Amino acid sequence: MTDPLIELRDALRRFAAERDWDQFHSPRNLATALAVEAAELLEPFQWLDGEKGATLSPETRAAVEQEMADVLLYLVRLADKLDVDLAAAARAKIVKNGEKYPVGKSRGSSRKYTEI
Amino acid sequence: MTDPLIELRDALRRFAAERDWDQFHSPRNLATALAVEAAELLEPFQWLDGEKGATLSPETRAAVEQEMADVLLYLVRLADKLDVDLAAAARAKIVKNGEKYPVGKSRGSSRKYTEI
Amino acid sequence: MTDPLIELRDALRRFAAERDWDQFHSPRNLATALAVEAAELLEPFQWLDGEKGATLSPETRAAVEQEMADVLLYLVRLADKLDVDLAAAARAKIVKNGEKYPVGKSRGSSRKYTEI
Amino acid sequence: MTDPLIELRDALRRFAAERDWDQFHSPRNLATALAVEAAELLEPFQWLDGEKGATLSPETRAAVEQEMADVLLYLVRLADKLDVDLAAAARAKIVKNGEKYPVGKSRGSSRKYTEI
Repeated sequence: MTDPLIELRDALRRFAAERDWDQFHSPRNLATALAVEAAELLEPFQWLDGEKGATLSPETRAAVEQEMADVLLYLVRLADKLDVDLAAAARAKIVKNGEKYPVGKSRGSSRKYTEI
Repeated sequence: MTDPLIELRDALRRFAAERDWDQFHSPRNLATALAVEAAELLEPFQWLDGEKGATLSPETRAAVEQEMADVLLYLVRLADKLDVDLAAAARAKIVKNGEKYPVGKSRGSSRKYTEI
Repeated sequence: MTDPLIELRDALRRFAAERDWDQFHSPRNLATALAVEAAELLEPFQWLDGEKGATLSPETRAAVEQEMADVLLYLVRLADKLDVDLAAAARAKIVKNGEKYPVGKSRGSSRKYTEI
Repeated sequence: MTDPLIELRDALRRFAAERDWDQFHSPRNLATALAVEAAELLEPFQWLDGEKGATLSPETRAAVEQEMADVLLYLVRLADKLDVDLAAAARAKIVKNGEKYPVGKSRGSSRKYTEI
């Protein structure tokens, strides 16, 4: 089995090389594109309160799936440019979050760690 | 080897279950949190024109790495809640992007596909 | 009475001139800063479903007020740099929105104009 | 002369009342819509490094103007719902920024106030 994050990284390297796009892929440009895609992903949810967000129309769902893919692709590309091991960083963040939000203090609460 | 996206998905399921946080993890809430994290990831780059974005201070770099981890974690969690196969969606998006940006027409250009 | 948008524009011009900051205030940098502030404004609402969003703690309310001010300041500054008359653009947009969302078709519905 | 922020507030009140849209205009929904519009405003700048951001095509400029209008309209509407005096908040923020960035320490530097 191939690690999908490595596989995507390599596919994006080829994609950019074939198009001579490395010149545009500065960390800042990629971080900007990622934020724009994340907002596009949020857009279909903006008027959906509470439960309604769980039931998207098939068209919206397909659009959401593509925006999620865009977010992942820019994230993988940015990680490549900054030489960040995404999976390791995410694992470390879960550990850190576990310390910020100990089970006993955060159970059933959505309060920020600075307020618990 | 374990697929890191599956491993992170499972770790986040446990994290939420231990804290009784599934009640807060509606797709809308997760999409909102993801967009907020993506903007935090963009923040250190906001005044860095051109080349400067490539050379972050060690502190900023560490912060950027954590924001990237946050984006990935919310994305993996959202994908779990919406039953989206992130790796498959990203692979499909690369294929689609290849059709929107054929090598011949997009080489060396940052123009949007609607303008090439 | 002074138009507050003009008054803020002039105050921001002085603020930037005193600090020699015009060099940093490219339209792109300002649009980036504005998006970052808009996400910071969204942050306190991210886990607040439905009604809860209406009752912020005094501290959160004060923070929200400051983020709203930041958004307005970057918007006024960007408008100045791009020579856009914000009030006129907003009035024109209300007229346009009225055409996209005729009262008869959009009453009581949050659907997008492309779907009504 | 009428204060444009008051005039826009009143026009948006009428717009929402005619369409029975107050039910959708929770602070959270408005803050989300504002962040989405701010990202749409950022979108045309995402690949424009440095100077290029200053010279937009007429079509892009018109789109940017409309996104700026959208940001202002959501901001004015959110301020109305939260009972915030936008102009006063912005004036107060300029004073505060002046204290965070004293002329002597911040002249010609884009560093954050926590780093000067």
